[in-house]
Amino acid sequence: MFNQKRIRDYGVTIGRLKTGHRNAISDVPGVMVGHATINNQKDSKTGVTAILPHTGNLFKEKLVSANYIINGFGKSIGLVQIDELGQIETPILLTNTLNVGKVSDALIEYMLKDNEDIGITTGTINPIVCECNDAYLNSARARYVEKHHVLEALMNAKEEFLEGDIGAGKGMKCYGYKGGIGTSSRIVTVNDNNYTVGILVLSNFGKKEDLIINGKTNSSANIDHEQERGSIIFIVATDAPLSSRQLKRVIKRVEVGLHRTGSYMGNGSGEVAVGFTTANRVNHYEHNESTSLKVWNESKIDLLFRAVAESTEEAILNSMITAETVIGRDDHKLESLKYHIDKYLK
Amino acid sequence: MFNQKRIRDYGVTIGRLKTGHRNAISDVPGVMVGHATINNQKDSKTGVTAILPHTGNLFKEKLVSANYIINGFGKSIGLVQIDELGQIETPILLTNTLNVGKVSDALIEYMLKDNEDIGITTGTINPIVCECNDAYLNSARARYVEKHHVLEALMNAKEEFLEGDIGAGKGMKCYGYKGGIGTSSRIVTVNDNNYTVGILVLSNFGKKEDLIINGKTNSSANIDHEQERGSIIFIVATDAPLSSRQLKRVIKRVEVGLHRTGSYMGNGSGEVAVGFTTANRVNHYEHNESTSLKVWNESKIDLLFRAVAESTEEAILNSMITAETVIGRDDHKLESLKYHIDKYLK
Amino acid sequence: MFNQKRIRDYGVTIGRLKTGHRNAISDVPGVMVGHATINNQKDSKTGVTAILPHTGNLFKEKLVSANYIINGFGKSIGLVQIDELGQIETPILLTNTLNVGKVSDALIEYMLKDNEDIGITTGTINPIVCECNDAYLNSARARYVEKHHVLEALMNAKEEFLEGDIGAGKGMKCYGYKGGIGTSSRIVTVNDNNYTVGILVLSNFGKKEDLIINGKTNSSANIDHEQERGSIIFIVATDAPLSSRQLKRVIKRVEVGLHRTGSYMGNGSGEVAVGFTTANRVNHYEHNESTSLKVWNESKIDLLFRAVAESTEEAILNSMITAETVIGRDDHKLESLKYHIDKYLK
Amino acid sequence: MFNQKRIRDYGVTIGRLKTGHRNAISDVPGVMVGHATINNQKDSKTGVTAILPHTGNLFKEKLVSANYIINGFGKSIGLVQIDELGQIETPILLTNTLNVGKVSDALIEYMLKDNEDIGITTGTINPIVCECNDAYLNSARARYVEKHHVLEALMNAKEEFLEGDIGAGKGMKCYGYKGGIGTSSRIVTVNDNNYTVGILVLSNFGKKEDLIINGKTNSSANIDHEQERGSIIFIVATDAPLSSRQLKRVIKRVEVGLHRTGSYMGNGSGEVAVGFTTANRVNHYEHNESTSLKVWNESKIDLLFRAVAESTEEAILNSMITAETVIGRDDHKLESLKYHIDKYLK
Repeated sequence: MFNQKRIRDYGVTIGRLKTGHRNAISDVPGVMVGHATINNQKDSKTGVTAILPHTGNLFKEKLVSANYIINGFGKSIGLVQIDELGQIETPILLTNTLNVGKVSDALIEYMLKDNEDIGITTGTINPIVCECNDAYLNSARARYVEKHHVLEALMNAKEEFLEGDIGAGKGMKCYGYKGGIGTSSRIVTVNDNNYTVGILVLSNFGKKEDLIINGKTNSSANIDHEQERGSIIFIVATDAPLSSRQLKRVIKRVEVGLHRTGSYMGNGSGEVAVGFTTANRVNHYEHNESTSLKVWNESKIDLLFRAVAESTEEAILNSMITAETVIGRDDHKLESLKYHIDKYLK
Repeated sequence: MFNQKRIRDYGVTIGRLKTGHRNAISDVPGVMVGHATINNQKDSKTGVTAILPHTGNLFKEKLVSANYIINGFGKSIGLVQIDELGQIETPILLTNTLNVGKVSDALIEYMLKDNEDIGITTGTINPIVCECNDAYLNSARARYVEKHHVLEALMNAKEEFLEGDIGAGKGMKCYGYKGGIGTSSRIVTVNDNNYTVGILVLSNFGKKEDLIINGKTNSSANIDHEQERGSIIFIVATDAPLSSRQLKRVIKRVEVGLHRTGSYMGNGSGEVAVGFTTANRVNHYEHNESTSLKVWNESKIDLLFRAVAESTEEAILNSMITAETVIGRDDHKLESLKYHIDKYLK
Repeated sequence: MFNQKRIRDYGVTIGRLKTGHRNAISDVPGVMVGHATINNQKDSKTGVTAILPHTGNLFKEKLVSANYIINGFGKSIGLVQIDELGQIETPILLTNTLNVGKVSDALIEYMLKDNEDIGITTGTINPIVCECNDAYLNSARARYVEKHHVLEALMNAKEEFLEGDIGAGKGMKCYGYKGGIGTSSRIVTVNDNNYTVGILVLSNFGKKEDLIINGKTNSSANIDHEQERGSIIFIVATDAPLSSRQLKRVIKRVEVGLHRTGSYMGNGSGEVAVGFTTANRVNHYEHNESTSLKVWNESKIDLLFRAVAESTEEAILNSMITAETVIGRDDHKLESLKYHIDKYLK
Repeated sequence: MFNQKRIRDYGVTIGRLKTGHRNAISDVPGVMVGHATINNQKDSKTGVTAILPHTGNLFKEKLVSANYIINGFGKSIGLVQIDELGQIETPILLTNTLNVGKVSDALIEYMLKDNEDIGITTGTINPIVCECNDAYLNSARARYVEKHHVLEALMNAKEEFLEGDIGAGKGMKCYGYKGGIGTSSRIVTVNDNNYTVGILVLSNFGKKEDLIINGKTNSSANIDHEQERGSIIFIVATDAPLSSRQLKRVIKRVEVGLHRTGSYMGNGSGEVAVGFTTANRVNHYEHNESTSLKVWNESKIDLLFRAVAESTEEAILNSMITAETVIGRDDHKLESLKYHIDKYLK
């Protein structure tokens, strides 16, 4: 977005479904994304990215949610409760691994401010913070992220947002190139009704020789014998009405897109998907003993599966192609894929 | 039921909630239970018990369901699909371990008869058969259960049914006494609306020295040094509207009742709970892309948790106290708890 | 094998690792495979395939095992106990969905014959039977598989075995072509030691327009608007020493190979992986309180992940390319991929 | 310990197994516990408790570990990775809910100091912080815990430590009485070899009318109609050699002890168990491709199950009986169970 040249602009079209208006997670009405990027000196290449699932008070109006742990070699916080209760009650923050504590603390503070009942007349809050390790470009040990970065990312949230080496994506590495933030979306039409599925990824995994772009590899890439230590986070949004169980099935299909770009889910790659649907809100102070949940007809769920698979593959490629070349800690350098894309276009 | 003397008739009252009319799983409207008992000779002490979740065509009108695996050292069939899809589409059958294959085959045949579309114009069927090992009293290797026993149990299903050494419970052993089929129910009242939770157990676990009856143990019981090899199956029915995720949380609370009778979930004790709610039907040939599901207000779910805990504890005790003394294979003898209940009453 | 023309023979090489001697699951020492095929009339296209993990008494010498449920819309039996105990104690049988009951009963009988202690002085047995639905070519409702087919498959087990429309694969359909049994293997070398990973699949899923062969699609394939109802079963064998937890991680990587052939894990596609390692045997009558288990160094596990990913992709393609065109029930016809492979080669 | 009067000193003996020397988690050789308590003013009643699994460098010498989520309505951090890798690499910290971010950040800093390779030449670190909500007595929104409290708790770690309203237990509430930290242990003897199982709990759940002490209830307790919002954390240590899979089975048995004290696992009660065995260390820089793991003979695992069940029940009672009466925020007052214990002794 914002005139960044994306993978479709290079003639690479993933899948058969139509994209949404922006081809972004924010095509799901109400969803916004904001970044805070830290780039003060060569060794500080990190940041925070915030995904706002809706524009109201999330603690008071929770959304039906699910998470799916692909490879649990990761340090995200908040996932256990999503699994139990099938809902989220805070924005979702992305950052680097060693900052999860600070970022979750800042998110708690942000939520307390808007909800004076928390910890007094009602329970506590479940902050959701997911992470990848940007230590190749960034001095991760310095933990450069501060509370004001979290607030900045939250305040910056808009429907139009940048991809690539920005926000939490500033220091990330993907398939030996520069990785970071990428997004994509698909429209699913059933019985003449349109539903949107949107994905945002924080990409930080894989080796150069493994990259596949729409089925094409670069056979001249050298084999990298270092151990992989990356990760990838997937945030899936939709306005299709789903139960938490159904949503877990839907977001599991990010694996399809992931694997088609070349990943085999390396040991050190913590891979986690978090999804929510804006179609079902859960009132924190509900008084009735039962309520009505809109759910999907499972026999028609394949369309949502395809939408997730396609948009995930495209979002990963977008995260790479929109990123610039970055030089960071100890002169570590990651080139942008855009200078090498021709090798994959044949 | 049927004038069997149950644990309440001995002055033992479990918990604080009211029971349903029959104090049985069949207090949930539409639920029926039937037995086929095999007792032809000393070494044939086995059978089949069928739980019918509703009286219509279950394949065409499925129920929202969940299962919870407490200890997976068991050979039940059908659980994997319940977990994925959150629904059941056949009656639930209980039998002994080595007959699961034959019984599931008979259940498939029974379902095919009523559904000519299966395997022709639509998919297949997921039979649910749970089991315990009755080899102490029964010649399990002989696999005495035949197809006609399955049909007999299904045909016998009624709202009034017997407990104890009957149906699948004929050969079971519980806490060193005779075990088998037991049932109980509780009424939950919220906002002046009544909901019913009903439990049926097939009890076959535990050692004599571990039995606790409403907090009381029998300190004179000898320590049994043999390894435990039993199991217990829990079937939970309710008319409270729940999603599959919520139902899984609810049925997990059978553990509370289980542990209060003295179990510590021994290694060899395969323990599985299957639950369903009659409040949400899923149409096999649904055409709309989305439908409405009635779900419970999670902040009021504790009442359902208590109902499951209390009725499970009572159902286990009922399974023992209603059983007669049985002598089986190799003159193995299990006495009825009723001849020893006084040791636990003061 | 047996001179069948496999996908490599068409110039398609999947991945970078070396294959084993036979490029088959039986490259893992001790593993054997046998088929019984039912093909008496046009509407009987089904069978049984048996995988023998070792040649001894599996009940007495169990193997460390794991299962991974990709999509639980399936009716396999035996998986719950694998998850709890991390071991298998019977051969693994594959058949069609509606025959799981009969086949598991036959497997129980087979195991009882060799183990007179079962059900008398020791516990019971956990039969493992996995399934796909072959109802497109086969009259599934007739349930043609009988006990003697199970024994035949077990007796036929050898290191050399056929792929394609054979055994349980006789009636299967994959990506709109004829599917069935396929196999492949990879050699992993660490510290100069060689380990083998072998895969066998029963393929029965996907639509023609989705098939990808080593990155290439057939853009002229028509879109098939029918709902997918297929499945795939993965059996993974290795002689690399692994704990059950590690093995679960390893076999999860079958998804990589699956997705690279074009699958997005459709709703109706029950997808299950079962794995075992021959490097760790568990003695049924172990007397010591603790024993020693050989486990893998997790920081070197990526090699095993790659081996599974590569061999799975190849096994799926082998299952299709080795199958002949088959005409079955109601004149349903599935063509062999081999008559269309050229569309995917350039 | 330290001359606190514990539940056994009131004549209440839980179970049949022998306790360890201290009847504490620190009976497992190498395990130490430390507290930092915050009690500066009426509304600050909180703190940190640290469990050190061994006295070396945990990042370099990890321990085989497991976690078990009983009720995921909780905000602990670090559990996802334990589940994937079966190991822990930091001490385990307990604190109040809204401080998990700050405490995990302090734990990261503590680990970085001792491990200069983290984030430079090797990966990151998985901090483990578990929590309960002490908002009834403590101004949780103020988040009083600071980095120095974390260091203080870690530095204070010893084999002798206090129970009750101390450390993370300062503000906790259990069954309507004062709760907090409690511990207990059991000795398991097999083939003349002794193994120790030790438990530490942070108790913060339940209603007064539900409390059961060794089978006895207080029938005069009034029914409390407020919703339960508590939680309980269980830390299980043992020197019995176990795999991660086995350890998960073992620590699941904390539920038995929990339920026998009266809990039915209320909706809002986040209940999590984390366990480790000191018998199996995992070297961070292991070079061999495979290593040897000592594992338990599963057919003898019942003894460990019993040990966990018994010691958990006792640890919960110890956490209450050793606590003093505390008055906190808004004059909320929780009385010590010791002033009411006679009602349960009859």
